[in-house]
Amino acid sequence: MTLENLAWIGAAYRNNSFRLWAVDGAGKVLKTATAPGRGVADLARAVSGMGAAAHVPVITSGLPGDSYRKTPCTPLPDTLLVVMSDGINRAVIPGLAQDAPAHLTRGPETLIAGFLALNPDFDGVICLPGEITTWAQISAAEVVSIVTFVTTEIARDQAANLGLTTATYHQDDFLQSVSDTLSQPERMTARLASIRAEGLQHNLPEANARARLWGALVGAELAATRPYWLGQQVALIGVGPETVFYKAALDGQGLAVTTTDADMMLLKGFAGAYMRLRN
Amino acid sequence: MTLENLAWIGAAYRNNSFRLWAVDGAGKVLKTATAPGRGVADLARAVSGMGAAAHVPVITSGLPGDSYRKTPCTPLPDTLLVVMSDGINRAVIPGLAQDAPAHLTRGPETLIAGFLALNPDFDGVICLPGEITTWAQISAAEVVSIVTFVTTEIARDQAANLGLTTATYHQDDFLQSVSDTLSQPERMTARLASIRAEGLQHNLPEANARARLWGALVGAELAATRPYWLGQQVALIGVGPETVFYKAALDGQGLAVTTTDADMMLLKGFAGAYMRLRN
Repeated sequence: MTLENLAWIGAAYRNNSFRLWAVDGAGKVLKTATAPGRGVADLARAVSGMGAAAHVPVITSGLPGDSYRKTPCTPLPDTLLVVMSDGINRAVIPGLAQDAPAHLTRGPETLIAGFLALNPDFDGVICLPGEITTWAQISAAEVVSIVTFVTTEIARDQAANLGLTTATYHQDDFLQSVSDTLSQPERMTARLASIRAEGLQHNLPEANARARLWGALVGAELAATRPYWLGQQVALIGVGPETVFYKAALDGQGLAVTTTDADMMLLKGFAGAYMRLRN
Repeated sequence: MTLENLAWIGAAYRNNSFRLWAVDGAGKVLKTATAPGRGVADLARAVSGMGAAAHVPVITSGLPGDSYRKTPCTPLPDTLLVVMSDGINRAVIPGLAQDAPAHLTRGPETLIAGFLALNPDFDGVICLPGEITTWAQISAAEVVSIVTFVTTEIARDQAANLGLTTATYHQDDFLQSVSDTLSQPERMTARLASIRAEGLQHNLPEANARARLWGALVGAELAATRPYWLGQQVALIGVGPETVFYKAALDGQGLAVTTTDADMMLLKGFAGAYMRLRN
Protein backbone atom coordinates (compact mmCIF):
# COMPACT_ATOMS: atom_id res chain seq x y z
CA MET A 1 0.00 0.00 0.00
CA THR A 2 1.29 3.45 -0.90
CA LEU A 3 2.45 5.89 1.76
CA GLU A 4 1.92 8.82 -0.65
CA ASN A 5 -0.47 10.73 1.62
CA LEU A 6 1.35 9.78 4.83
CA ALA A 7 0.89 12.52 7.44
CA TRP A 8 2.20 10.90 10.63
CA ILE A 9 3.20 7.65 12.29
CA GLY A 10 2.01 6.52 15.71
CA ALA A 11 4.28 4.15 17.61
CA ALA A 12 3.25 2.41 20.84
CA TYR A 13 5.86 0.64 22.94
CA ARG A 14 5.05 -2.36 25.13
CA ASN A 15 7.09 -5.36 26.32
CA ASN A 16 10.20 -4.83 24.19
CA SER A 17 8.35 -4.21 20.96
CA PHE A 18 6.75 -1.42 18.95
CA ARG A 19 3.44 -1.36 17.14
CA LEU A 20 3.35 1.24 14.37
CA TRP A 21 0.55 2.84 12.38
CA ALA A 22 1.16 4.97 9.28
CA VAL A 23 -1.75 7.40 8.99
CA ASP A 24 -2.87 10.00 6.40
CA GLY A 25 -4.10 13.52 7.08
CA ALA A 26 -7.71 12.33 7.36
CA GLY A 27 -6.85 9.75 10.04
CA LYS A 28 -6.94 6.79 7.67
CA VAL A 29 -4.46 3.97 8.45
CA LEU A 30 -2.27 3.33 5.40
CA LYS A 31 -0.03 0.65 6.86
CA THR A 32 0.74 -1.10 10.16
CA ALA A 33 3.86 -2.82 11.42
CA THR A 34 5.35 -4.40 14.53
CA ALA A 35 9.05 -4.41 15.38
CA PRO A 36 11.17 -5.59 18.31
CA GLY A 37 13.21 -3.10 20.33
CA ARG A 38 12.92 -0.53 23.11
CA GLY A 39 15.07 2.46 22.13
CA VAL A 40 14.70 5.32 19.66
CA ALA A 41 17.32 3.75 17.36
CA ASP A 42 15.20 0.57 17.16
CA LEU A 43 12.15 2.71 16.49
CA ALA A 44 13.92 4.66 13.72
CA ARG A 45 14.87 1.38 12.05
CA ALA A 46 11.24 0.24 12.20
CA VAL A 47 10.00 3.56 10.72
CA SER A 48 12.53 3.34 7.91
CA GLY A 49 11.44 -0.27 7.31
CA MET A 50 7.89 0.96 6.71
CA GLY A 51 9.17 3.07 3.81
CA ALA A 52 8.29 6.39 5.48
CA ALA A 53 10.15 9.59 4.57
CA ALA A 54 12.51 10.83 7.31
CA HIS A 55 10.68 14.13 7.86
CA VAL A 56 7.33 12.52 8.80
CA PRO A 57 6.48 13.09 12.48
CA VAL A 58 6.62 9.93 14.59
CA ILE A 59 4.39 10.21 17.66
CA THR A 60 5.44 7.82 20.41
CA SER A 61 3.71 6.49 23.50
CA GLY A 62 5.01 4.45 26.40
CA LEU A 63 8.76 4.52 25.72
CA PRO A 64 11.00 3.85 28.75
CA GLY A 65 12.88 6.96 29.81
CA ASP A 66 10.46 9.52 28.42
CA SER A 67 9.11 12.38 30.52
CA TYR A 68 6.00 12.58 32.72
CA ARG A 69 3.36 15.22 33.45
CA LYS A 70 1.96 15.64 36.96
CA THR A 71 -1.66 14.76 37.67
CA PRO A 72 -4.26 16.20 37.83
CA CYS A 73 -4.03 17.15 34.15
CA THR A 74 -5.52 16.45 30.74
CA PRO A 75 -4.30 13.16 29.25
CA LEU A 76 -2.41 15.04 26.50
CA PRO A 77 -0.37 18.25 26.81
CA ASP A 78 -1.63 21.34 24.92
CA THR A 79 1.30 21.09 22.52
CA LEU A 80 3.84 18.40 21.65
CA LEU A 81 7.33 19.30 20.41
CA VAL A 82 8.73 17.52 17.38
CA VAL A 83 12.46 16.87 17.87
CA MET A 84 14.89 15.26 15.43
CA SER A 85 16.58 12.28 17.13
CA ASP A 86 18.26 9.19 15.66
CA GLY A 87 17.15 10.30 12.19
CA ILE A 88 13.42 10.61 12.92
CA ASN A 89 11.19 13.56 13.81
CA ARG A 90 9.86 12.29 17.11
CA ALA A 91 7.07 13.75 19.25
CA VAL A 92 6.73 12.28 22.75
CA ILE A 93 3.38 11.74 24.44
CA PRO A 94 4.51 12.08 28.07
CA GLY A 95 3.33 9.61 30.69
CA LEU A 96 1.37 10.75 33.72
CA ALA A 97 2.87 10.87 37.20
CA GLN A 98 1.05 11.14 40.49
CA ASP A 99 3.11 12.15 43.51
CA ALA A 100 1.43 10.66 46.56
CA PRO A 101 0.73 7.83 46.44
CA ALA A 102 3.26 7.47 43.62
CA HIS A 103 1.79 6.01 40.43
CA LEU A 104 2.79 6.33 36.79
CA THR A 105 1.27 5.69 33.39
CA ARG A 106 3.32 4.92 30.29
CA GLY A 107 0.86 4.32 27.48
CA PRO A 108 -2.54 4.38 29.23
CA GLU A 109 -2.64 8.21 28.97
CA THR A 110 -2.78 7.85 25.16
CA LEU A 111 -5.69 5.41 25.37
CA ILE A 112 -7.47 7.73 27.81
CA ALA A 113 -6.95 10.64 25.40
CA GLY A 114 -8.54 8.60 22.61
CA PHE A 115 -11.47 7.58 24.78
CA LEU A 116 -12.10 11.18 25.88
CA ALA A 117 -11.87 12.40 22.29
CA LEU A 118 -14.78 10.06 21.51
CA ASN A 119 -16.55 10.63 24.85
CA PRO A 120 -15.78 14.26 25.77
CA ASP A 121 -18.40 14.44 28.55
CA PHE A 122 -17.37 11.21 30.29
CA ASP A 123 -17.26 11.49 34.06
CA GLY A 124 -16.24 8.35 35.92
CA VAL A 125 -13.43 5.84 36.03
CA ILE A 126 -11.43 4.15 33.28
CA CYS A 127 -9.84 0.76 33.97
CA LEU A 128 -6.90 -0.14 31.70
CA PRO A 129 -5.76 -3.74 32.30
CA GLY A 130 -2.20 -4.46 31.25
CA GLU A 131 1.18 -5.68 32.43
CA ILE A 132 0.55 -3.01 35.06
CA THR A 133 -3.15 -2.20 35.39
CA THR A 134 -4.16 1.47 35.62
CA TRP A 135 -7.34 2.97 37.04
CA ALA A 136 -7.94 6.64 36.23
CA GLN A 137 -10.55 8.93 37.73
CA ILE A 138 -11.85 11.29 35.04
CA SER A 139 -13.69 14.53 35.63
CA ALA A 140 -14.10 17.60 33.39
CA ALA A 141 -11.79 16.03 30.75
CA GLU A 142 -8.96 15.73 33.26
CA VAL A 143 -7.26 12.76 34.86
CA VAL A 144 -7.95 13.58 38.49
CA SER A 145 -6.07 10.68 40.07
CA ILE A 146 -4.56 7.33 39.16
CA VAL A 147 -3.78 4.07 40.90
CA THR A 148 -1.86 1.17 39.40
CA PHE A 149 -1.56 -2.53 40.31
CA VAL A 150 0.93 -5.32 39.61
CA THR A 151 -1.92 -7.85 39.38
CA THR A 152 -0.95 -9.23 35.96
CA GLU A 153 2.71 -9.63 36.93
CA ILE A 154 1.84 -11.57 40.08
CA ALA A 155 -0.72 -13.69 38.21
CA ARG A 156 1.86 -14.56 35.55
CA ASP A 157 4.60 -15.34 38.08
CA GLN A 158 2.27 -17.39 40.29
CA ALA A 159 0.91 -19.29 37.26
CA ALA A 160 4.51 -20.18 36.41
CA ASN A 161 5.21 -21.25 40.02
CA LEU A 162 2.06 -23.40 39.94
CA GLY A 163 3.06 -24.89 36.58
CA LEU A 164 -0.21 -23.76 34.93
CA THR A 165 -0.30 -23.92 31.14
CA THR A 166 -4.03 -23.63 30.42
CA ALA A 167 -5.49 -20.54 28.74
CA THR A 168 -9.02 -21.31 29.98
CA TYR A 169 -10.64 -20.58 33.31
CA HIS A 170 -13.60 -21.83 35.32
CA GLN A 171 -16.16 -19.00 35.42
CA ASP A 172 -17.95 -19.96 38.67
CA ASP A 173 -14.68 -20.45 40.57
CA PHE A 174 -13.47 -17.10 39.27
CA LEU A 175 -16.55 -15.19 40.43
CA GLN A 176 -16.52 -16.97 43.81
CA SER A 177 -12.86 -16.10 44.28
CA VAL A 178 -13.49 -12.45 43.34
CA SER A 179 -16.36 -12.26 45.77
CA ASP A 180 -14.45 -13.97 48.63
CA THR A 181 -11.42 -11.73 48.17
CA LEU A 182 -13.52 -8.59 47.85
CA SER A 183 -14.89 -9.27 51.33
CA GLN A 184 -11.53 -10.37 52.83
CA PRO A 185 -8.84 -8.79 50.65
CA GLU A 186 -6.16 -9.23 53.35
CA ARG A 187 -6.36 -13.00 52.76
CA MET A 188 -5.32 -12.72 49.12
CA THR A 189 -1.84 -14.26 49.48
CA ALA A 190 -3.32 -17.00 51.70
CA ARG A 191 -5.83 -17.77 48.92
CA LEU A 192 -2.94 -18.13 46.49
CA ALA A 193 -1.32 -20.62 48.88
CA SER A 194 -4.66 -22.48 49.17
CA ILE A 195 -4.71 -23.03 45.40
CA ARG A 196 -1.47 -24.96 45.72
CA ALA A 197 -2.85 -26.98 48.66
CA GLU A 198 -6.03 -27.81 46.70
CA GLY A 199 -3.89 -28.93 43.78
CA LEU A 200 -1.73 -31.22 45.93
CA GLN A 201 -4.63 -32.57 48.01
CA HIS A 202 -7.47 -32.78 45.52
CA ASN A 203 -5.91 -32.52 42.04
CA LEU A 204 -7.56 -29.18 41.37
CA PRO A 205 -7.89 -28.84 37.55
CA GLU A 206 -5.80 -26.11 35.93
CA ALA A 207 -8.81 -24.12 34.72
CA ASN A 208 -10.08 -23.92 38.32
CA ALA A 209 -6.64 -23.03 39.66
CA ARG A 210 -6.25 -20.27 37.06
CA ALA A 211 -9.75 -18.97 37.87
CA ARG A 212 -9.02 -18.83 41.60
CA LEU A 213 -5.63 -17.21 41.04
CA TRP A 214 -7.02 -14.42 38.89
CA GLY A 215 -10.14 -14.14 41.04
CA ALA A 216 -8.08 -13.53 44.19
CA LEU A 217 -5.88 -10.92 42.50
CA VAL A 218 -8.65 -9.05 40.68
CA GLY A 219 -10.88 -9.33 43.76
CA ALA A 220 -8.24 -7.61 45.90
CA GLU A 221 -7.85 -4.97 43.20
CA LEU A 222 -11.62 -4.33 43.15
CA ALA A 223 -11.54 -4.01 46.95
CA ALA A 224 -8.80 -1.38 46.68
CA THR A 225 -10.55 0.54 43.88
CA ARG A 226 -14.04 0.39 45.37
CA PRO A 227 -14.10 4.17 45.99
CA TYR A 228 -13.26 4.57 42.29
CA TRP A 229 -15.95 2.37 40.76
CA LEU A 230 -18.78 2.29 43.31
CA GLY A 231 -21.75 4.13 41.79
CA GLN A 232 -19.59 5.42 38.93
CA GLN A 233 -19.55 5.01 35.18
CA VAL A 234 -16.81 2.52 34.35
CA ALA A 235 -15.06 2.16 30.99
CA LEU A 236 -12.75 -0.73 30.25
CA ILE A 237 -9.88 -0.34 27.75
CA GLY A 238 -7.64 -3.34 27.23
CA VAL A 239 -6.41 -5.80 24.65
CA GLY A 240 -4.37 -8.33 26.65
CA PRO A 241 -5.71 -11.70 27.87
CA GLU A 242 -6.08 -10.22 31.37
CA THR A 243 -8.91 -7.95 30.18
CA VAL A 244 -11.54 -10.73 30.23
CA PHE A 245 -10.99 -11.19 33.97
CA TYR A 246 -11.64 -7.52 34.69
CA LYS A 247 -14.75 -7.55 32.50
CA ALA A 248 -16.12 -10.65 34.22
CA ALA A 249 -15.32 -9.30 37.69
CA LEU A 250 -16.89 -5.88 37.06
CA ASP A 251 -19.95 -7.48 35.45
CA GLY A 252 -20.18 -9.70 38.52
CA GLN A 253 -20.50 -6.54 40.64
CA GLY A 254 -23.53 -5.53 38.58
CA LEU A 255 -21.75 -2.61 36.96
CA ALA A 256 -22.72 -1.43 33.47
CA VAL A 257 -19.20 -1.44 32.08
CA THR A 258 -18.50 0.31 28.77
CA THR A 259 -16.11 -1.88 26.80
CA THR A 260 -14.07 -0.31 24.05
CA ASP A 261 -11.85 -1.15 21.09
CA ALA A 262 -8.43 -0.50 22.61
CA ASP A 263 -6.65 -0.11 19.26
CA MET A 264 -9.22 2.49 18.16
CA MET A 265 -8.66 4.37 21.44
CA LEU A 266 -4.92 4.29 20.83
CA LEU A 267 -5.23 5.60 17.27
CA LYS A 268 -7.61 8.37 18.40
CA GLY A 269 -5.11 9.27 21.10
CA PHE A 270 -2.30 9.50 18.55
CA ALA A 271 -4.57 11.55 16.27
CA GLY A 272 -5.24 13.96 19.14
CA ALA A 273 -1.50 14.28 19.71
CA TYR A 274 -0.98 14.95 15.96
CA MET A 275 -3.39 17.91 16.21
CA ARG A 276 -1.17 19.35 18.94
CA LEU A 277 2.20 19.05 17.22
CA ARG A 278 4.50 22.07 17.13
CA ASN A 279 7.81 22.22 15.29
CA MET B 1 34.08 -38.59 62.53
CA THR B 2 32.99 -42.18 63.26
CA LEU B 3 29.40 -43.33 62.74
CA GLU B 4 29.93 -46.24 65.17
CA ASN B 5 27.06 -45.33 67.49
CA LEU B 6 24.78 -44.15 64.69
CA ALA B 7 21.11 -44.69 65.66
CA TRP B 8 19.20 -42.75 63.01
CA ILE B 9 19.47 -40.18 60.22
CA GLY B 10 17.17 -37.18 59.86
CA ALA B 11 16.72 -35.81 56.34
CA ALA B 12 14.90 -32.55 55.62
CA TYR B 13 13.96 -31.68 52.04
CA ARG B 14 13.69 -28.11 50.79
CA ASN B 15 14.19 -26.48 47.38
CA ASN B 16 15.63 -29.47 45.52
CA SER B 17 18.13 -30.43 48.19
CA PHE B 18 18.40 -32.49 51.35
CA ARG B 19 20.02 -31.62 54.65
CA LEU B 20 21.03 -34.71 56.63
CA TRP B 21 21.97 -35.31 60.25
CA ALA B 22 23.49 -38.57 61.50
CA VAL B 23 22.55 -38.90 65.18
CA ASP B 24 23.41 -41.36 67.96
CA GLY B 25 21.02 -42.94 70.46
CA ALA B 26 21.51 -40.06 72.91
CA GLY B 27 20.56 -37.44 70.32
CA LYS B 28 24.13 -36.32 69.63
CA VAL B 29 24.86 -35.25 66.04
CA LEU B 30 27.73 -37.35 64.67
CA LYS B 31 27.85 -35.95 61.14
CA THR B 32 25.92 -33.58 58.85
CA ALA B 33 25.66 -33.40 55.07
CA THR B 34 23.79 -31.63 52.30
CA ALA B 35 22.97 -33.16 48.93
CA PRO B 36 21.03 -32.10 45.83
CA GLY B 37 17.96 -34.06 44.73
CA ARG B 38 14.25 -34.47 45.42
CA GLY B 39 13.49 -38.20 45.23
CA VAL B 40 14.09 -41.17 47.50
CA ALA B 41 16.82 -42.47 45.14
CA ASP B 42 18.69 -39.17 45.54
CA LEU B 43 18.23 -39.42 49.29
CA ALA B 44 19.52 -43.02 49.37
CA ARG B 45 22.63 -41.91 47.49
CA ALA B 46 23.20 -39.12 50.02
CA VAL B 47 22.75 -41.52 52.97
CA SER B 48 25.19 -43.98 51.44
CA GLY B 49 27.61 -41.08 50.84
CA MET B 50 27.58 -40.37 54.58
CA GLY B 51 28.92 -43.89 55.22
CA ALA B 52 25.80 -45.06 57.06
CA ALA B 53 24.84 -48.74 57.18
CA ALA B 54 21.80 -49.64 55.06
CA HIS B 55 19.66 -50.80 58.01
CA VAL B 56 19.77 -47.45 59.86
CA PRO B 57 16.36 -45.73 59.89
CA VAL B 58 16.21 -42.56 57.79
CA ILE B 59 13.51 -40.19 59.02
CA THR B 60 12.39 -37.77 56.32
CA SER B 61 10.48 -34.50 56.41
CA GLY B 62 9.03 -32.38 53.61
CA LEU B 63 9.49 -34.71 50.64
CA PRO B 64 7.19 -34.04 47.65
CA GLY B 65 4.61 -36.77 47.21
CA ASP B 66 4.52 -37.99 50.82
CA SER B 67 1.28 -38.35 52.74
CA TYR B 68 -0.60 -35.85 54.91
CA ARG B 69 -2.54 -36.03 58.16
CA LYS B 70 -5.72 -34.01 58.67
CA THR B 71 -5.76 -31.14 61.17
CA PRO B 72 -6.59 -30.74 63.99
CA CYS B 73 -3.96 -33.23 65.17
CA THR B 74 -0.64 -33.50 66.98
CA PRO B 75 2.31 -32.46 64.80
CA LEU B 76 3.62 -36.05 64.76
CA PRO B 77 1.63 -39.28 64.43
CA ASP B 78 1.68 -41.69 67.41
CA THR B 79 3.76 -44.17 65.41
CA LEU B 80 5.85 -43.96 62.24
CA LEU B 81 6.33 -46.98 60.01
CA VAL B 82 9.82 -47.85 58.78
CA VAL B 83 9.64 -49.10 55.19
CA MET B 84 12.50 -50.34 52.99
CA SER B 85 12.55 -48.32 49.77
CA ASP B 86 15.37 -47.67 47.27
CA GLY B 87 17.77 -49.48 49.62
CA ILE B 88 17.09 -47.39 52.75
CA ASN B 89 14.84 -47.93 55.77
CA ARG B 90 12.72 -44.82 55.46
CA ALA B 91 10.23 -43.41 57.97
CA VAL B 92 8.03 -40.58 56.69
CA ILE B 93 6.96 -37.65 58.84
CA PRO B 94 3.65 -36.84 57.13
CA GLY B 95 2.73 -33.25 56.32
CA LEU B 96 -0.40 -31.65 57.74
CA ALA B 97 -3.47 -30.93 55.63
CA GLN B 98 -6.36 -28.68 56.48
CA ASP B 99 -9.52 -29.10 54.42
CA ALA B 100 -11.30 -25.76 54.41
CA PRO B 101 -9.71 -23.41 53.74
CA ALA B 102 -7.19 -25.76 52.13
CA HIS B 103 -3.67 -25.38 53.50
CA LEU B 104 -0.74 -27.81 53.72
CA THR B 105 2.54 -28.10 55.57
CA ARG B 106 5.52 -30.06 54.27
CA GLY B 107 8.29 -29.62 56.81
CA PRO B 108 6.87 -27.09 59.29
CA GLU B 109 5.09 -29.90 61.20
CA THR B 110 8.53 -31.30 62.13
CA LEU B 111 9.71 -27.92 63.43
CA ILE B 112 6.46 -27.55 65.38
CA ALA B 113 6.99 -31.00 66.90
CA GLY B 114 10.47 -29.98 68.01
CA PHE B 115 9.23 -26.73 69.50
CA LEU B 116 6.43 -28.47 71.40
CA ALA B 117 8.86 -31.13 72.68
CA LEU B 118 10.82 -28.27 74.27
CA ASN B 119 7.73 -26.23 75.20
CA PRO B 120 5.02 -28.82 75.97
CA ASP B 121 2.65 -26.30 77.58
CA PHE B 122 2.82 -23.74 74.79
CA ASP B 123 -0.55 -22.28 73.85
CA GLY B 124 -0.52 -19.70 71.09
CA VAL B 125 0.62 -19.31 67.52
CA ILE B 126 3.78 -20.41 65.72
CA CYS B 127 4.92 -18.50 62.64
CA LEU B 128 7.24 -20.43 60.30
CA PRO B 129 8.57 -18.16 57.52
CA GLY B 130 9.74 -19.98 54.42
CA GLU B 131 9.29 -20.33 50.69
CA ILE B 132 5.66 -20.71 51.77
CA THR B 133 5.06 -19.22 55.22
CA THR B 134 2.99 -21.22 57.69
CA TRP B 135 1.09 -19.99 60.75
CA ALA B 136 -0.13 -22.67 63.14
CA GLN B 137 -2.54 -22.27 66.05
CA ILE B 138 -1.44 -24.51 68.92
CA SER B 139 -3.59 -25.61 71.82
CA ALA B 140 -3.26 -28.64 74.15
CA ALA B 141 -0.26 -29.92 72.15
CA GLU B 142 -2.32 -30.03 68.93
CA VAL B 143 -2.17 -28.05 65.72
CA VAL B 144 -5.68 -26.63 65.76
CA SER B 145 -5.56 -24.80 62.43
CA ILE B 146 -3.07 -23.61 59.84
CA VAL B 147 -2.88 -20.87 57.25
CA THR B 148 -0.14 -20.48 54.65
CA PHE B 149 1.01 -17.57 52.47
CA VAL B 150 2.99 -17.17 49.23
CA THR B 151 4.58 -13.97 50.57
CA THR B 152 8.19 -15.05 49.98
CA GLU B 153 7.47 -16.23 46.43
CA ILE B 154 5.82 -12.94 45.48
CA ALA B 155 8.60 -10.93 47.17
CA ARG B 156 11.26 -12.87 45.25
CA ASP B 157 9.43 -12.57 41.91
CA GLN B 158 8.70 -8.87 42.40
CA ALA B 159 12.29 -8.18 43.45
CA ALA B 160 13.39 -9.81 40.19
CA ASN B 161 10.87 -7.75 38.18
CA LEU B 162 12.15 -4.59 39.91
CA GLY B 163 15.76 -5.59 39.24
CA LEU B 164 16.65 -5.45 42.95
CA THR B 165 19.97 -7.02 43.92
CA THR B 166 20.52 -5.62 47.42
CA ALA B 167 20.38 -7.84 50.51
CA THR B 168 19.83 -4.88 52.84
CA TYR B 169 16.64 -3.03 53.72
CA HIS B 170 15.67 0.34 55.14
CA GLN B 171 14.18 -0.32 58.58
CA ASP B 172 11.97 2.79 58.84
CA ASP B 173 10.51 2.31 55.37
CA PHE B 174 9.83 -1.33 56.19
CA LEU B 175 7.94 -0.56 59.40
CA GLN B 176 5.99 2.25 57.71
CA SER B 177 5.04 -0.08 54.87
CA VAL B 178 3.94 -2.81 57.31
CA SER B 179 1.84 -0.32 59.23
CA ASP B 180 0.26 1.21 56.10
CA THR B 181 -0.61 -2.18 54.66
CA LEU B 182 -1.93 -3.50 57.97
CA SER B 183 -4.48 -0.70 57.93
CA GLN B 184 -5.29 -0.99 54.19
CA PRO B 185 -4.33 -4.54 53.16
CA GLU B 186 -6.48 -4.37 50.02
CA ARG B 187 -4.01 -1.82 48.61
CA MET B 188 -1.05 -4.23 48.77
CA THR B 189 -0.66 -4.77 45.00
CA ALA B 190 -1.08 -1.01 44.44
CA ARG B 191 1.77 -0.43 46.93
CA LEU B 192 3.94 -2.79 44.93
CA ALA B 193 3.16 -0.75 41.80
CA SER B 194 3.99 2.46 43.73
CA ILE B 195 7.48 1.15 44.46
CA ARG B 196 8.13 1.00 40.73
CA ALA B 197 6.73 4.51 40.24
CA GLU B 198 8.91 5.88 43.07
CA GLY B 199 11.92 4.22 41.47
CA LEU B 200 11.23 5.72 38.04
CA GLN B 201 10.26 9.15 39.36
CA HIS B 202 12.56 9.65 42.33
CA ASN B 203 15.34 7.05 42.00
CA LEU B 204 14.20 5.21 45.10
CA PRO B 205 17.28 3.41 46.51
CA GLU B 206 17.18 -0.39 46.38
CA ALA B 207 17.26 -0.79 50.17
CA ASN B 208 14.12 1.36 50.41
CA ALA B 209 12.42 -0.45 47.55
CA ARG B 210 13.17 -3.83 49.16
CA ALA B 211 11.91 -2.58 52.52
CA ARG B 212 8.62 -1.33 51.02
CA LEU B 213 8.15 -4.53 49.01
CA TRP B 214 8.57 -6.81 52.04
CA GLY B 215 6.68 -4.38 54.27
CA ALA B 216 3.63 -4.46 52.00
CA LEU B 217 3.63 -8.25 51.75
CA VAL B 218 4.28 -8.99 55.43
CA GLY B 219 1.87 -6.21 56.42
CA ALA B 220 -0.92 -7.85 54.41
CA GLU B 221 -0.02 -11.19 55.98
CA LEU B 222 -0.21 -9.72 59.49
CA ALA B 223 -3.62 -8.25 58.63
CA ALA B 224 -4.83 -11.69 57.55
CA THR B 225 -3.39 -13.43 60.62
CA ARG B 226 -4.50 -10.83 63.16
CA PRO B 227 -6.99 -13.26 64.77
CA TYR B 228 -4.06 -15.67 65.18
CA TRP B 229 -1.55 -13.38 66.87
CA LEU B 230 -3.60 -10.68 68.59
CA GLY B 231 -3.22 -11.14 72.33
CA GLN B 232 -1.48 -14.49 71.82
CA GLN B 233 1.94 -15.92 72.56
CA VAL B 234 3.87 -15.93 69.29
CA ALA B 235 6.88 -18.15 68.50
CA LEU B 236 8.95 -17.60 65.36
CA ILE B 237 10.79 -20.53 63.76
CA GLY B 238 12.74 -19.76 60.61
CA VAL B 239 16.19 -19.82 59.09
CA GLY B 240 15.75 -18.16 55.67
CA PRO B 241 16.50 -14.48 54.96
CA GLU B 242 12.75 -13.75 55.06
CA THR B 243 12.66 -14.45 58.82
CA VAL B 244 14.15 -11.05 59.77
CA PHE B 245 11.18 -9.29 58.14
CA TYR B 246 8.68 -11.26 60.20
CA LYS B 247 10.66 -10.62 63.38
CA ALA B 248 10.83 -6.89 62.71
CA ALA B 249 7.14 -6.69 61.76
CA LEU B 250 5.94 -8.61 64.83
CA ASP B 251 8.24 -6.60 67.10
CA GLY B 252 6.77 -3.48 65.50
CA GLN B 253 3.32 -4.59 66.69
CA GLY B 254 4.61 -4.69 70.26
CA LEU B 255 4.45 -8.47 70.49
CA ALA B 256 6.83 -10.42 72.75
CA VAL B 257 7.94 -12.88 70.09
CA THR B 258 9.82 -16.02 71.13
CA THR B 259 12.58 -16.60 68.60
CA THR B 260 14.05 -20.04 68.26
CA ASP B 261 16.95 -21.94 66.74
CA ALA B 262 15.22 -23.52 63.74
CA ASP B 263 17.82 -26.25 63.26
CA MET B 264 17.48 -27.28 66.90
CA MET B 265 13.68 -27.44 66.48
CA LEU B 266 14.13 -29.61 63.40
CA LEU B 267 16.50 -32.02 65.19
CA LYS B 268 14.17 -32.23 68.20
CA GLY B 269 11.33 -32.96 65.80
CA PHE B 270 13.29 -35.76 64.17
CA ALA B 271 14.24 -37.09 67.62
CA GLY B 272 10.55 -37.16 68.57
CA ALA B 273 9.81 -39.09 65.40
CA TYR B 274 12.61 -41.55 66.20
CA MET B 275 10.93 -42.30 69.55
CA ARG B 276 7.78 -43.23 67.65
CA LEU B 277 9.34 -45.58 65.08
CA ARG B 278 7.76 -49.00 64.56
CA ASN B 279 9.16 -51.66 62.27
